[in-house]
Amino acid sequence: MAKHKARGSEAARLPAGFRAAGCSAGIKRSGRPDMALIVSDAPAAAAGVFTTNQVQAAPVRLNRELLRGGMARAVVVNSGIANACTGSEGLMNARRMGACAAEHLGVPASSVFVCSTGSIGPQLPMGRIEKGIITLVPAAKAAGGEDAARAIMTTDTRPKRWSVRTRLGGRMVTVCGLAKGAGMIEPNMATMLAFLTTDAVVAPPVLQRLLGEAVDETFNRITVDGDRSTNDTVLFLANGLAGNGPHGPRTPGWDRFRAAVFETCDRLARMIVADGEGATKFITIHVRGARTKAEADLAARAVANSLLVKTAWAGSRANWGRVMDALGYSKARVREEAVDIRFDRLTAVRRGCAGPASEEALSRVVDRPSFTVDIHLHQGAGEATVYTCNCTEEYVRVNR
Amino acid sequence: MAKHKARGSEAARLPAGFRAAGCSAGIKRSGRPDMALIVSDAPAAAAGVFTTNQVQAAPVRLNRELLRGGMARAVVVNSGIANACTGSEGLMNARRMGACAAEHLGVPASSVFVCSTGSIGPQLPMGRIEKGIITLVPAAKAAGGEDAARAIMTTDTRPKRWSVRTRLGGRMVTVCGLAKGAGMIEPNMATMLAFLTTDAVVAPPVLQRLLGEAVDETFNRITVDGDRSTNDTVLFLANGLAGNGPHGPRTPGWDRFRAAVFETCDRLARMIVADGEGATKFITIHVRGARTKAEADLAARAVANSLLVKTAWAGSRANWGRVMDALGYSKARVREEAVDIRFDRLTAVRRGCAGPASEEALSRVVDRPSFTVDIHLHQGAGEATVYTCNCTEEYVRVNR
Repeated sequence: MAKHKARGSEAARLPAGFRAAGCSAGIKRSGRPDMALIVSDAPAAAAGVFTTNQVQAAPVRLNRELLRGGMARAVVVNSGIANACTGSEGLMNARRMGACAAEHLGVPASSVFVCSTGSIGPQLPMGRIEKGIITLVPAAKAAGGEDAARAIMTTDTRPKRWSVRTRLGGRMVTVCGLAKGAGMIEPNMATMLAFLTTDAVVAPPVLQRLLGEAVDETFNRITVDGDRSTNDTVLFLANGLAGNGPHGPRTPGWDRFRAAVFETCDRLARMIVADGEGATKFITIHVRGARTKAEADLAARAVANSLLVKTAWAGSRANWGRVMDALGYSKARVREEAVDIRFDRLTAVRRGCAGPASEEALSRVVDRPSFTVDIHLHQGAGEATVYTCNCTEEYVRVNR
Repeated sequence: MAKHKARGSEAARLPAGFRAAGCSAGIKRSGRPDMALIVSDAPAAAAGVFTTNQVQAAPVRLNRELLRGGMARAVVVNSGIANACTGSEGLMNARRMGACAAEHLGVPASSVFVCSTGSIGPQLPMGRIEKGIITLVPAAKAAGGEDAARAIMTTDTRPKRWSVRTRLGGRMVTVCGLAKGAGMIEPNMATMLAFLTTDAVVAPPVLQRLLGEAVDETFNRITVDGDRSTNDTVLFLANGLAGNGPHGPRTPGWDRFRAAVFETCDRLARMIVADGEGATKFITIHVRGARTKAEADLAARAVANSLLVKTAWAGSRANWGRVMDALGYSKARVREEAVDIRFDRLTAVRRGCAGPASEEALSRVVDRPSFTVDIHLHQGAGEATVYTCNCTEEYVRVNR
């Protein structure tokens, strides 16, 4: 994949004119890093996608409002407390958090987005938040992506970054993404935060459309536990510092740029699943032959979210019967006697009954750290893919 | 509750003219009992409710067909293998299993219902099944309910029985139920089997309506893991041997009889939840103030099936934020700032934010073996109750 360090995780550099930082502000009892800042030296076009949960955290409400302006200078983030279910005090605190960062950065308050992730219920400790901001502002630097990625982690075991460089409109541009998981992850956004930045010149409506399409094909295709969070946010800032623009669908290289955005989202989404709470396996559920794409999606999600399927795969047994069961109760049209299921290349189910693969051979597939369950319903041309992980005792331990 | 042994679990006697037995036929590797027979000395009116899963086990297909006749003499059951996803061979085996029992009982094959529960995929070992039937037929006795209840267990840790005696049409009649859980339990039936018997005289259509209503208010209100099985079956046999009939809604005492049937189903349903795989707590989710009853149901089920909620309650933390989150992504209309939540009598959430109860006090409620989460949405008059259990590491261990 990596050629000339044009893409990757470790080498991830922020695009031109972006700086970032992370620090420990004492919000988490553990003392681990819990505040992050991403700042652009120039006003950036902004796009955002938010949780569809009816219960929405205060920062999500604030960001929706700010996004109407279409521009951003910075994102300030805390982990440890979600600032959700906190009423009008919570909304005021989110505003204060943004205003404080704006003041110390010397930018308008309307250009600072605010994100929180962590426990639902408690109010933010505003004294600590403000001290954190005072630490973050002077610390922000071009190489600060790693620190920021660490500071937004909750139950994540590792930071998640990806970046891609590509040529657009005759100039090299960079797309960089930072994200966090790792629980309350489910279709239509999750307790996940992701921050994309680029130095390309892209107008806000174009950026918003591009982000929506990319999220739909990447972050919205993952599930860890089927619980959709109150705080899910993906923000995309484009500061245009790569020069000559504006870029859009007719610019030479736009397709490659679009692919770079999709790749960044896809990589981060996969990292979130692979680092799902307690997860030890990355599983791709691929459904073909549904009546429609929507039904393929329903079938794939039923399997990907079945607790019995996910716990089966905590062990070494394929337990394809549980996959059949989940398909049967999905809202997709399923004719039992038409279903074929393969685990990687082995046929576990043929026409609704046990296929030729032995249980031992199937176990060897399920023992792999990553495998694909390919389901053919033979009812039409609908096709969909969902990424999921197994559910181990560790998941319960993390969440009890 | 119990007066004059008119109701209860231990004292459960089969109604007049019913006999039952259980035996070990060698289907389970463990050698534990795995076959059961319930037989009526006289032809009985029959009613049945089956899984709504599109993937249906062979015995479910057979029973649906037999039920058209409205009459039954016996039910033969095996545990260990579900006879699901077994194609035409599986259907033939289900028929052979019923025919074999019919032959040895000297009754028509069309009057013997067949149930299976256990692993999906493998074919039934018909030699062992037939030997089991030869053992069961002479062993069936009036006091055999306990043996039958034990023989239908899979991951259940204890047999589940209930019976109620009541006066109907001037005669004492008995309603008796046997059931098994304990995984793949979810709304709209579950991998659960339940067998109800009564010596009351009830015509098949009346019996069917009564059973449907009772199941809807009891077995369909429980959830263990949100996975709906391929084999769910509730059968109700009424042999009329209590004398003078037929009984129906206009018979003196019908309301009490109806209540006895509901009570039996309710008790068995609660036993299934309380004995859910790995479960240590029985939790009632009660939603009020939804726009409609259907929305109350959606909200209650979203909470009852949330993996994060259920794992939170594996520990001692109330974690009401996860309840808010689940309400928010339910398909019910929720206005965050209108939601009140109580844990038993303690107010955890008032108008969408933390209520007066301390975390410590809420923890003491969550530590109870049984508690109620009462949710008021303040959107209308819709109300629903769902019973669920917590999700512990043991759930994963049982299923991996």
